[in-house]
Amino acid sequence: MAQNIVVIGGVALGPKAACRFKRLEPGSTVTMIDQSSLISYGGCGIPYYVSGDVSDAKELCETSFHMLRDPKFFKEVKGVDVQILTKATRIDREKKVVEVENVTTGECAALPYDKLVYATGASPRKLNLPGEDLKGVSYVCNPEDATRIREGISSGVVNKAVIVGAGFIGLEMAEAFADMWGIETSVVEITDQVMPRLVSPALATMAQQHMEEGGVDFYFGESVTAIEGEDGKVARVITSKRTLEADVVIIAAGVIPNSKLAEEAGLACHERGGVIVDEFMRTNDPNIYAGGDCAIVKHLLTGEGAFLPLGSMANRQGRVIGNNLAGRETRFDGVVGSFVVKLFETSLAGTGLSLEAAKAAGYDALSVLLIQLDRAHFYPTKELMTLEMVFEKESRRVLGVQGFGSSGDALVGRINAVAALLKMNPTIDEISNMELAYSPPFSAAMDILNTLGNLADNAILGINQGVGPDGFQELWNQRESGDCYFVDCREKADAEELMKRNPDWHNVPQGEIYNRLDEIPKDKSVVLVCNTGARSYEAQIMLQDKGYENIINIHGGMAAINKYGVKL
Amino acid sequence: MAQNIVVIGGVALGPKAACRFKRLEPGSTVTMIDQSSLISYGGCGIPYYVSGDVSDAKELCETSFHMLRDPKFFKEVKGVDVQILTKATRIDREKKVVEVENVTTGECAALPYDKLVYATGASPRKLNLPGEDLKGVSYVCNPEDATRIREGISSGVVNKAVIVGAGFIGLEMAEAFADMWGIETSVVEITDQVMPRLVSPALATMAQQHMEEGGVDFYFGESVTAIEGEDGKVARVITSKRTLEADVVIIAAGVIPNSKLAEEAGLACHERGGVIVDEFMRTNDPNIYAGGDCAIVKHLLTGEGAFLPLGSMANRQGRVIGNNLAGRETRFDGVVGSFVVKLFETSLAGTGLSLEAAKAAGYDALSVLLIQLDRAHFYPTKELMTLEMVFEKESRRVLGVQGFGSSGDALVGRINAVAALLKMNPTIDEISNMELAYSPPFSAAMDILNTLGNLADNAILGINQGVGPDGFQELWNQRESGDCYFVDCREKADAEELMKRNPDWHNVPQGEIYNRLDEIPKDKSVVLVCNTGARSYEAQIMLQDKGYENIINIHGGMAAINKYGVKL
Repeated sequence: MAQNIVVIGGVALGPKAACRFKRLEPGSTVTMIDQSSLISYGGCGIPYYVSGDVSDAKELCETSFHMLRDPKFFKEVKGVDVQILTKATRIDREKKVVEVENVTTGECAALPYDKLVYATGASPRKLNLPGEDLKGVSYVCNPEDATRIREGISSGVVNKAVIVGAGFIGLEMAEAFADMWGIETSVVEITDQVMPRLVSPALATMAQQHMEEGGVDFYFGESVTAIEGEDGKVARVITSKRTLEADVVIIAAGVIPNSKLAEEAGLACHERGGVIVDEFMRTNDPNIYAGGDCAIVKHLLTGEGAFLPLGSMANRQGRVIGNNLAGRETRFDGVVGSFVVKLFETSLAGTGLSLEAAKAAGYDALSVLLIQLDRAHFYPTKELMTLEMVFEKESRRVLGVQGFGSSGDALVGRINAVAALLKMNPTIDEISNMELAYSPPFSAAMDILNTLGNLADNAILGINQGVGPDGFQELWNQRESGDCYFVDCREKADAEELMKRNPDWHNVPQGEIYNRLDEIPKDKSVVLVCNTGARSYEAQIMLQDKGYENIINIHGGMAAINKYGVKL
Repeated sequence: MAQNIVVIGGVALGPKAACRFKRLEPGSTVTMIDQSSLISYGGCGIPYYVSGDVSDAKELCETSFHMLRDPKFFKEVKGVDVQILTKATRIDREKKVVEVENVTTGECAALPYDKLVYATGASPRKLNLPGEDLKGVSYVCNPEDATRIREGISSGVVNKAVIVGAGFIGLEMAEAFADMWGIETSVVEITDQVMPRLVSPALATMAQQHMEEGGVDFYFGESVTAIEGEDGKVARVITSKRTLEADVVIIAAGVIPNSKLAEEAGLACHERGGVIVDEFMRTNDPNIYAGGDCAIVKHLLTGEGAFLPLGSMANRQGRVIGNNLAGRETRFDGVVGSFVVKLFETSLAGTGLSLEAAKAAGYDALSVLLIQLDRAHFYPTKELMTLEMVFEKESRRVLGVQGFGSSGDALVGRINAVAALLKMNPTIDEISNMELAYSPPFSAAMDILNTLGNLADNAILGINQGVGPDGFQELWNQRESGDCYFVDCREKADAEELMKRNPDWHNVPQGEIYNRLDEIPKDKSVVLVCNTGARSYEAQIMLQDKGYENIINIHGGMAAINKYGVKL
């Protein structure tokens, strides 16, 4: 029996659900409305249009074979009726009708539905500050924002950019300004790190340092108190600690799900906004589905509601809704929270929970940090990658892996392999023994992911006793207390320069330890450092074998210390 | 209580097991013997040394921080005693003694053990043909082979190379000769495709065509019958069909596990060679472990014994053995068979079973082929990737994924994500909904892996009825029968050239289908082609909706047809 489907929202999830359903039930009718005139665009491409990587904003609204995804396209190619500039003003669940209003003419109408898809997306979080509406202040939301920002740059009057927020969009926009246009770029972030809650302070600091080298300045722990202008145009941003001049200001302080209409219709919503859906992407009204940036789904590691406004979520959830509209019972069981962000020539990525998030969710969690080459050490093109694994101590369950570094797809490939497994509740042993495809141009014989599992195993068992670069920073800051004895266990030539500069820096190459035990005191904590943490681990075992009790191995070694920016 | 461990074989698994055990039990003794003078080298790096990517063969024998992994290194850094040029001649399991002989002096000795690790590796399969010992004929086994081959090239007399075998090593060596040195390179393969049994004929043909463009010639279905020389140096290779001139010949016809000594000692071996081990990597003698290239492990998808001579297997199994030697019960539950091989600027990779292997294992298997961009279509750097998924029809269980194309790590990253999940017996729905980290520089909002799952879903349900480029080739070859009506459903401009050349090629853009139904006959099989198979899928649904019954959608579209090399 033919159905009549109405879809509110025409950007990511809406079109996907509409088209999938229409392919399954070509005889049914689908009407998709959107309050804007632009639909089905790739909003996540905006930073790449601003940077110039994408040359024409039109590309964000096209298929991969350059067909414009406009209402005509949806009608002819997909069989979906689209009404643009049409705003839903009320959902009457009793009558199964959506009341709409043409935003240009003000004309009202009522669209009856058998089933409804609520796909209203999210809106940028506003600061609600004076000056936020000045010319030159933008959000990063739709192609119109993108065009406005890029036109501003092209006009040549942009020398200084201030970005509010160091999450995904903030960092992507910072790169776009600094890398492609050489604009003096500052990021103001209210917390004390980039990508708060998503990665550890150690990884965040590495990413931050990399972006600083690319010309981006960061101001952490500062909130914006006002935006000031001259002649109606933005001129400066006032934070809790300073004044930053600005020709352009980007507000990237997160997004808020557009769930007001749903709430007014009595659909169950999360206390912080967002429509709550079950594993079939169904709201508490069995005739109404919701998904994408306006919905709250289940986080498979915390069991709590998760808000992940990502185009990938919208697309996959859209297909699930399309199936369910057609009566093909299909599940979207939840999310593990995978992410990646490109930062100049490198990237920051992760899946599952960071240590902070894991602890907040009540896990007795630990993490280990590892630095290793991303492919065979003898292969000419290779880079150091940093991975951190979060796990539950008692159960050995893996809770998340985050990483930094390595250009191209090497890091995201590792993260995706863990992500694929994560909902199966893997233990660290499954990471130790993960069967990654091996060949020297692609991985080491013992891939960094396998080593990461091994490191976690050794840490749980107390065989490898160590801390990361942040832990080293603390120990080094307190070196004058004399509690620690720092031993560089690389070869002499590698350690010499540091020894000249620092009287507290000692050198005993790992292979010579058994012959030079008298140089290493037993009554202090012995801090062992090598290139990446592998030789210092061997040294630790040798010292323990000789009765040393307080040994701290620096995970990631000098590589991590340098990436973290410790001044030695 | 201190143990006395003997390890036979010092290349990959042996050193790993020895060092891991020694870290767990520093007070125990480990003696590792090898009949060669070179130990612990990266044999898988040989093709990259021959190509010149690795400049010095020494690098294959070093750690990532340039320490030579020689007996002195193992003694000082790892605490492992190494005896090189020492061949094991007999294992006396009663007395728990390994009888050894110095290969230089002929001196004999007996090494007692508490536990023994059998890590003898594998040897190249010889052709047993006259001329195989001529100068210029090499196997690819150890750094000495590598040095000899490279010296031959450097001497400047190598103009023509013939490689026997189109598996991993054969293809890597073919690339090394053709790409870096411009040598006229031919590959002779006894089966009818590259990477037999590992990938489908469609993927193999794409890879072959790519290598042919790189200057490599292939001769399939031919066996070598003789190798002939002049003045003691190789001059030509005689196959069952032709004579190929050759200044250098590489025999890459696979490897055979070195299990003779184990067999003589009464250890259970596979009928085709290789020591059989349990999930603890233990032989049928509880005091003897085996692993790496000489062992047979369990294939998790077939339940049969699997022989995977890969450095990655050896390393991971070595750690498991090291643990078990120290009484830490650790499992190696089996393999899913992941692989990757670099082919010039692209790669061929897979995990699990190919369609052929799945059918041979008794599965009622199907496969689908998909071509899609490896990241957001609007992102400037992107490539088409081809993936094929093999699955069981009834259970929807995924049995394998193989792929071709995309430079860098994009393909191997997808394969690894599937590999990670494969032993959990995922269904295609888990691939449809796999949560890959999303950002336009790394993936599409609907990643190619998700689409692959969706395609399999549609194929199982009969919604998407199609064949790959090999199926198209067959249909096209029979076009004169008039049974098929070929419809290019791209825009007119895209189809025009093909229509001029082929009277059998017709064009109805997908968006115009409902208005031009009278052009499409109902009494023939309608073959639908677009760029990659997405629009032809939409067209198929539209035609079905209008009562058409025999429709064949070409999966992968023109992209696959071109990569497969169909002449239109």
